[in-house]
Amino acid sequence: MGGDHGPVVTVAAAVAFANREPDVEFLLVGSESILQAELKKHHASNHARLKIINATEVVEMDDPIEVALRRKKDSSMRVAINQVKEGTAQACVSAGNTGALMAVSRYVLKTMQGVDRPAICSILPNQKNLPTYMLDLGANVDCEPLHLHQFAIMGSALVSALEGKDKPSIGLLNVGEEDIKGNDVVKKTAQLLRADHERGLLNFYGNVEGNDIFEGTTDIVVCDGFVGNVTLKAAEGMGRFVKITLTAAFKSNPLNILGAIFARGALKSISRTMNPSNYNGGSLLGLRGLVFKSHGSADKYSYEWAIQRAFDAAKNDVLSRIATSMAKLMPVADAEATAEIVAPDNNELLVQKTA
Amino acid sequence: MGGDHGPVVTVAAAVAFANREPDVEFLLVGSESILQAELKKHHASNHARLKIINATEVVEMDDPIEVALRRKKDSSMRVAINQVKEGTAQACVSAGNTGALMAVSRYVLKTMQGVDRPAICSILPNQKNLPTYMLDLGANVDCEPLHLHQFAIMGSALVSALEGKDKPSIGLLNVGEEDIKGNDVVKKTAQLLRADHERGLLNFYGNVEGNDIFEGTTDIVVCDGFVGNVTLKAAEGMGRFVKITLTAAFKSNPLNILGAIFARGALKSISRTMNPSNYNGGSLLGLRGLVFKSHGSADKYSYEWAIQRAFDAAKNDVLSRIATSMAKLMPVADAEATAEIVAPDNNELLVQKTA
Repeated sequence: MGGDHGPVVTVAAAVAFANREPDVEFLLVGSESILQAELKKHHASNHARLKIINATEVVEMDDPIEVALRRKKDSSMRVAINQVKEGTAQACVSAGNTGALMAVSRYVLKTMQGVDRPAICSILPNQKNLPTYMLDLGANVDCEPLHLHQFAIMGSALVSALEGKDKPSIGLLNVGEEDIKGNDVVKKTAQLLRADHERGLLNFYGNVEGNDIFEGTTDIVVCDGFVGNVTLKAAEGMGRFVKITLTAAFKSNPLNILGAIFARGALKSISRTMNPSNYNGGSLLGLRGLVFKSHGSADKYSYEWAIQRAFDAAKNDVLSRIATSMAKLMPVADAEATAEIVAPDNNELLVQKTA
Repeated sequence: MGGDHGPVVTVAAAVAFANREPDVEFLLVGSESILQAELKKHHASNHARLKIINATEVVEMDDPIEVALRRKKDSSMRVAINQVKEGTAQACVSAGNTGALMAVSRYVLKTMQGVDRPAICSILPNQKNLPTYMLDLGANVDCEPLHLHQFAIMGSALVSALEGKDKPSIGLLNVGEEDIKGNDVVKKTAQLLRADHERGLLNFYGNVEGNDIFEGTTDIVVCDGFVGNVTLKAAEGMGRFVKITLTAAFKSNPLNILGAIFARGALKSISRTMNPSNYNGGSLLGLRGLVFKSHGSADKYSYEWAIQRAFDAAKNDVLSRIATSMAKLMPVADAEATAEIVAPDNNELLVQKTA
């Protein structure tokens, strides 16, 4: 029911995905009548792999997290996440309110052993024509070294599962490559990651800078949620700026229009590489269940990408791979010691700390 | 002498600038023989407005800050900044080591009354075809609300002087627009800026997000040097990625090549808008003198832009306008109270805190 367009987009995307992917089954969660009507529009009322689960409430985009968490217990978001908890679904995809989605997921599913703070991980395109996985993208605006360390472990397990790389490379986002650069949190995180690297547990490249995200210097870029969120949105904003500039330039006179007609193929390929829709679908990592967040503004095409990522993660058993990595790299004793420091104001923090 | 290309670029740019701008005079600081040879190449050995000041040392790009500060007392960088202190120059432009430039400038020129930490301010292009001024871009990786507050005041005075806007709008970079979003530093900074806004002293728009930089939502975007540096480099990295993608697409087959020939005008206009060279020249704000930093990799064209910004700042009396604003908005008592907290480890911090 979530996102700017609701079931018009989400149901359309689910139907299209179901039609091309025989291994998928959908539980569409929300207002039965609305979902039924949408399915009918797509001639999928009796589709064997598209079932409706009724939910009477909806978390609105501007609902405070407390409302999502404590009042709307029959929201489509809550009921959908319940399906994951109960094992009737292997993953949940939502275009709803990010803060609410993270809070409800965390409340219902709980965090994985060894994980203090779940993080949001998405991909960005790079020059090597490969994805750069980046986390955290906004779930945690203040991070301690231990949190960034955990993000790196989770990111590594995710990329290993999805990209079939044994030890994907990890970069720590910083203001320079040298060890002496950056603030205390980043420097201490680098020490933790270097120690794992020396034990052969992680492939830590070292510090990376903003440009490295798009150069594909490393498979994974780790940062706190403040920096990650600002950088992601800046990149999206710049992408739109490029598109506007391109469009205006190619329409500016008959010669340019003619050029655009001849170079239609080139323009299409650029738009394919640069289209943020192709990178839709952020993974909420560190929970005892798979939850994916689509952009609120996603259209059908873009929402299909979020579904695709959830499908791939479920198929590649991302969850147990992260759990295994956490158990190996983040002994429970360490995590519990930190959890004590972090726990008391967790809920309080979450209210402010989601983007 | 600084930057990746040294006097080959800097002298060439100075000669070109002097030839088109009759109001400028240059003091070229560095090795007399090298500078003389470069001037000769450009038939400018006897140019009335291009004089050489000899300096026997050079701060290398990888010199630690202590070396620039304590050992190389006759470096071109130090001697050039001395000209500003002594009033023989109205501004200094350098493509050298940013950390060293900031440290030496701070040591020689001192910070302005009311300013605890100088900041680096540059412009980025936006959809409105106007510049977005952003600071800090890397001088301070850890900031307190008071520092961000000062950045806003300095940025406002700078933009007011350079763009002729009475009260340019200020956005505070955050993970969301709402007041409850962000970390404590950002929330407290917002309170300080709102108070100035209510007193009619600053035009505080509120929180802005990463995409707002390129949408031109506000004239100025304020952030700490960590976020600013990462965002700027990410934007530059994405710009290069776009360029590579464009070039590859337009060369991919004969039709696309033909299209590129017809749409040559469009491609040129895109490259003009997107070319980072046009935005070269970061201002070191908060010092008792004007110092501008060019990208180390700048070519002649790009270095001319850095000179242009220094020239405009000197011409528009940016320095006294910032001093006036600081005196009005940042009473000395406040600044001194903070200076006490900040001062003891200033030098130590600087070593780590430059990008």
